[in-house]
Amino acid sequence: MSDKEYNIAILGATGNVGRLLLEILEERNFPYKSIKLLASERSVGQIMESPSLKKYPGRNLASFEFSKRPGFKDKYKIELAEPSAFDDVDIVFASAGAKVSAQLAPEIVKRGGIIIDNSSQFRMDPEVPLVVPEVNADDLRQHRGIIANPNCSTAPLVVVLKPLDKKFKIKRVVVSTYQSVSGAGKAAIDELLETTKKAVSNEQFENKFMNQKIAFNLIPHIDVFQDNGYTKEEMKVVNESRKMMNRPDLKITCTAVRVPVFICHSESVNIEFEANDGEKPTLKQVREILENAPLIKLVDEPHSDPKKARYPMPLDVAGTDPVYVGRLRVDESQPNSFNMWIVSDNLRIGAALNAVKIGEELVRQGLILSKKL
Amino acid sequence: MSDKEYNIAILGATGNVGRLLLEILEERNFPYKSIKLLASERSVGQIMESPSLKKYPGRNLASFEFSKRPGFKDKYKIELAEPSAFDDVDIVFASAGAKVSAQLAPEIVKRGGIIIDNSSQFRMDPEVPLVVPEVNADDLRQHRGIIANPNCSTAPLVVVLKPLDKKFKIKRVVVSTYQSVSGAGKAAIDELLETTKKAVSNEQFENKFMNQKIAFNLIPHIDVFQDNGYTKEEMKVVNESRKMMNRPDLKITCTAVRVPVFICHSESVNIEFEANDGEKPTLKQVREILENAPLIKLVDEPHSDPKKARYPMPLDVAGTDPVYVGRLRVDESQPNSFNMWIVSDNLRIGAALNAVKIGEELVRQGLILSKKL
Repeated sequence: MSDKEYNIAILGATGNVGRLLLEILEERNFPYKSIKLLASERSVGQIMESPSLKKYPGRNLASFEFSKRPGFKDKYKIELAEPSAFDDVDIVFASAGAKVSAQLAPEIVKRGGIIIDNSSQFRMDPEVPLVVPEVNADDLRQHRGIIANPNCSTAPLVVVLKPLDKKFKIKRVVVSTYQSVSGAGKAAIDELLETTKKAVSNEQFENKFMNQKIAFNLIPHIDVFQDNGYTKEEMKVVNESRKMMNRPDLKITCTAVRVPVFICHSESVNIEFEANDGEKPTLKQVREILENAPLIKLVDEPHSDPKKARYPMPLDVAGTDPVYVGRLRVDESQPNSFNMWIVSDNLRIGAALNAVKIGEELVRQGLILSKKL
Repeated sequence: MSDKEYNIAILGATGNVGRLLLEILEERNFPYKSIKLLASERSVGQIMESPSLKKYPGRNLASFEFSKRPGFKDKYKIELAEPSAFDDVDIVFASAGAKVSAQLAPEIVKRGGIIIDNSSQFRMDPEVPLVVPEVNADDLRQHRGIIANPNCSTAPLVVVLKPLDKKFKIKRVVVSTYQSVSGAGKAAIDELLETTKKAVSNEQFENKFMNQKIAFNLIPHIDVFQDNGYTKEEMKVVNESRKMMNRPDLKITCTAVRVPVFICHSESVNIEFEANDGEKPTLKQVREILENAPLIKLVDEPHSDPKKARYPMPLDVAGTDPVYVGRLRVDESQPNSFNMWIVSDNLRIGAALNAVKIGEELVRQGLILSKKL
């Protein structure tokens, strides 16, 4: 890290990701001089007590402790997200949706700031680096003020695919996702909690925020449908993976499904490798690559005694940083193919943590200038 | 149907499937002369009020009415499942687990009865027909008293694969399942309900019956692990599909995951067809085959307005007979490939309904002799 310190803003500070951004900036000791929290008019003046997300329903359902991190500033007052708010800001962590980013990113850049944007607005813009630091940190060098944070299913996927592709070229990937409601925002967490309460009391319930009922249900529909029959979420996995892995030819297909889980996205992934001049990847080699790859934690102990078997699950993974891989096995239906199960915290590696790591990488590479206050 | 009537026994009458068997035998007007309910010693003397499963937690969470069926006999008394109980029985519908079936099937056959067995005990026995009537009813002709009912994820899968394979030979299938807790029995339904109640009240909870916590979680582990790293459930999908489709060469791989849903198994399925002399299956052709295939109901209306989009979901499907297919689309990652989403009631088509249909088919084909009482 450099010894410089930066003025930071969190745009969309009241959402799931916004609140976690604050937590993670503190947790990782990001070199900030000041933090301001920005949101839309209706939240202005609101006091954010941190760490706020730790008190959130669903988080305390998991089996681990949420409160191990060091202390935080007690309170922040929400300010209005208007252009002049960025006059003195070096880095903006934005998670307020595509429309807000489209509107405010130019204002931030015009003022000499950098925006690390969690929305989909700029991800596929060829002039905007789309980055998971462990995968393609070098792409940050080309930035012109806007850096995009990938989709929350895509980030953990490329963390797994990249080191494999480096050693054995990947031919094709088939992904089925099991995505938690927190990926759809705070209102979705509330809705899963409230409708589940009704369901277990045998009360009728209706969906309001979600497209469909989510309590004890599955919704194979995330983001809007495209003309090709795929949802936008599914095409994000396809297109963003290709961009970040610098493999525009990568063959990859996805089915994205919302599941009644609060935090963590899981993925069942089938990978086929190219057969390279007779060098065929073995299960042992694939395992070793994953064991030694950054950010990946292998939890993969099949066992004939069900009580001794280990594999990643959302309740264990929520609130932690790694991308967990388990259920790794040879797919015997065709050569050079493997199945695996990936679980990661969609709010962390899939959003806030990755954004903060991009910030750290910008600092490390000296790609950011601090404004004098 | 014939005008004969048969003496029937339900073996394992107190479980999820046993209780539903009683319901479906009534619902479909199966030509029975008598029904006796058999179970282990600890249930003997218990009175079964029917329809019992309709009052079950989880069932009334769904959005449809459960109580549309015609009336039932008021009460049945559970009798002991001992060999002599089968003396006067023509057809036994068994759902009491592999051990009980292994022990009692020979006794039933010795007495001239037929057992339609929902356990995995005899499924891969080359002398035992493994049947979904819509797929391979002809295999029943070879029966020697024992007929196996397939695994609850495999039955709906072959209902979809078979008509497709008939027209365009299937090359390879990649399946990821999203399986409800009712597949694990009554205790699993109870545990999802009870632990979810605790979870939404912010109480700690532990798993007892299930291998892992299931409330707001995902468990990528169904049935025991095999030496190849796959679970037995995953290998059932592979092996039983090959047997029922009479395609021992079929390339198929599966990842099986338990989800916090009460009833219905869902599957994300990727199918690659052989390229037959330049005849490539189109999306339109695949859709037409599925539309015209027995037991399949297509619910597949992607729409740019999220409120107008339609696809199958567990809460809508639970309690109904068809195998629902939606999210049908071309997989552009390789030629002749398609993605789809399958949902069906695992207790019905995946178990009790299929068993009763096997019984009906035996009657229709005259493959069963009634004992005189």
